[in-house]
Amino acid sequence: MLIPLLSLLAFAQATPPTPAAPAATPPAPLPSDVAEQDWRAIPDNELLVMTLTGNRTVVIRLAARFAPEHVANVRTLAKAGWWDASSVYRVQENWVAQWGDATEKKPLAPGVVKIPAAEYEFAGFTVAQRLSKADSHSTASGFTADGWPIATDGKMAWLTHCYGTVGVARDSAPDTGSGSELFTPIGQSARRLDRNYTVVGRIIEGMKYLSALPRSDAAMGVYATEAERSGIVSVRLASDMPVAERPKFEYRSTDNERFAAYIKLRENPAAPMIGSGLEVCEMPLATRRVPVK
Amino acid sequence: MLIPLLSLLAFAQATPPTPAAPAATPPAPLPSDVAEQDWRAIPDNELLVMTLTGNRTVVIRLAARFAPEHVANVRTLAKAGWWDASSVYRVQENWVAQWGDATEKKPLAPGVVKIPAAEYEFAGFTVAQRLSKADSHSTASGFTADGWPIATDGKMAWLTHCYGTVGVARDSAPDTGSGSELFTPIGQSARRLDRNYTVVGRIIEGMKYLSALPRSDAAMGVYATEAERSGIVSVRLASDMPVAERPKFEYRSTDNERFAAYIKLRENPAAPMIGSGLEVCEMPLATRRVPVK
Repeated sequence: MLIPLLSLLAFAQATPPTPAAPAATPPAPLPSDVAEQDWRAIPDNELLVMTLTGNRTVVIRLAARFAPEHVANVRTLAKAGWWDASSVYRVQENWVAQWGDATEKKPLAPGVVKIPAAEYEFAGFTVAQRLSKADSHSTASGFTADGWPIATDGKMAWLTHCYGTVGVARDSAPDTGSGSELFTPIGQSARRLDRNYTVVGRIIEGMKYLSALPRSDAAMGVYATEAERSGIVSVRLASDMPVAERPKFEYRSTDNERFAAYIKLRENPAAPMIGSGLEVCEMPLATRRVPVK
Repeated sequence: MLIPLLSLLAFAQATPPTPAAPAATPPAPLPSDVAEQDWRAIPDNELLVMTLTGNRTVVIRLAARFAPEHVANVRTLAKAGWWDASSVYRVQENWVAQWGDATEKKPLAPGVVKIPAAEYEFAGFTVAQRLSKADSHSTASGFTADGWPIATDGKMAWLTHCYGTVGVARDSAPDTGSGSELFTPIGQSARRLDRNYTVVGRIIEGMKYLSALPRSDAAMGVYATEAERSGIVSVRLASDMPVAERPKFEYRSTDNERFAAYIKLRENPAAPMIGSGLEVCEMPLATRRVPVK
C-alpha cells in the first residue's frame, strides 16, 4: 500500500515505547529517543476528562500555570458538573470545534469569575528548547520545560494555537470569556489567535472524537439544529474522580538532550528526505496513559 | 453564543460577495476586498471531480503547470475511469486522508507512467505576492499570480503542503508515485513534506467529506476492514463531463493590489486584535462555483 513515507516516522514516534523484544542485541537507542526518566506525571488536577455520548472520552491537559484564572474557572465548572448534558454545538470546517452551553442561558456555577483578566500572553516564561529558525508569528518559538509549545517576541511569551489546543471562546474584547465555552482548532493551526485568546490546555487523548465530527455549513459552523449536536455526558477533573477510575497520564519532558536531538531530527530529517525546517505546531508532544495501580 | 472573534472575519471573507443591498449608500469596499475582475476561470481540464457514495462531491484544482507529468497521469486515470469503485482507505488523525486502490493489485491504465520524474520542486517559478516575513520552512513564501501557495529557498521553489493540498502518495525514493494514490492533509499542515512529495492540486470544494471521515487507529491510519472505507463512485475531469453537468469554478487571482492589501490585513489585523504574522498555509485562497449557463 502506497503511503507517504514520512508518516511511517510520525507513527513510530507517536507510539508509546514497547517492551524490549527478547532479541540478543536490542537496537541501540537513537539520540532522539525518549528515555524512561523523561516521562513525568501530569497532576490529577491538571487533567480534564470530557465524556461524550457513546463512551467517547476526550482528555485535556490544563495549562494551569499559564492561565491560572481561567483554569480556576474551568475547575469550578467541572466540580459543579456544569457541562453535564451540554454539547459540542459548533464544528466549522478547517477552523474549530466548540463546546459548552449552546443556549447561552445557563447561569455560571457559583464562584466562577464571569470576566477574568486576560491571560493571552505573559512575561516570565521562557522557551526552554528553541527551534533553530524564527517563524511567521514570532521571533523565537519552541517548548517550555514541561512540554508546552510557546512563542515569544523577545518581551512577552504566549502559548501557541496549534491543532488540538484548547482555547477560551469569547465574544469580543475586553470580554475574555469565562472558560465555560471552549474550542479547539480542527484544521490548519490557528496561530492568528495567538496573544488574542486564552489557552487553557491541549487535547492529549480522543482528539479524533472532535476532529471527525460532521461540519456545519450554517453561519460560523454552529449546528443549525439541536439534533446535530454531540452530547456531553460529563466533564470532570481527574482529581475529582474515584481513584479507581482516575486516568493517569505522563508527558514527555522537553528540557533534556534527547528532546533537543528530536527537534534537530525533525528540522533535518535523514536523507533521502530534504529537511525544510519545523514549525512549532508540527512537533509531536508525546503523552502516554499509564496503568492505574 | 460565544464564538472566537476572528472566525467572524474568516467567515465574512470566505463567503462569496452578495449582491449590493438596496441601501442608498452601499458601504465602500475595503482595499482588501476582491474585485469582480480578480476572478479568473479555472480551465475545465484542471478540475477533477471526485464523487463519493452518498452524493458527496469533492472538487480538486489541478496544479497542471507545476506537476505536468503527474497531472498527465491523473488525467489518463480519470479518463479511463480507473478510480471508479475505488475508495478512501486511509484516514489518519492529524495527518492525511488517502484514496485510490486499497488492494494494490489493480493495473494502472494504459498510458500511465508508473514512475514519473520527481516534480517536488522547480526552478523558474516566482512568488508573485510575498508575505512580509520568512517562515520556518523557507526564506520566502507567498502566492503565484494564479493563486497557488508557494515557498522558496532563493534557488528552487515548491508548492506548500497545506491543509487541503492534494499530494501524490509513494513508497520511497526514487519511486515518486504514479498519481493513482492521492492524499490530503486533514490536520496541522504537512509542510515537512515540502520538496519531498509531488503536489498535484488542492481541494476547492467538499473538503469536509474527507476531513470529517472516521479516523482509523490501525497502523498508518489504514482502515483495518473494507467496511470502514468510503466508496468512490467516480473521478472525472470536468472537461470529460457532459457540458450540462460540468462544474465551473473561478479562483481569486493574487497578482493585484487588492490581494496584496488582503495579505497586509491578515498580517496586521485591525485593533483590538494583535497581529502576530501570517504563515502561507493560513491565507484563505478563494475560489467560487459559478452558474453553468
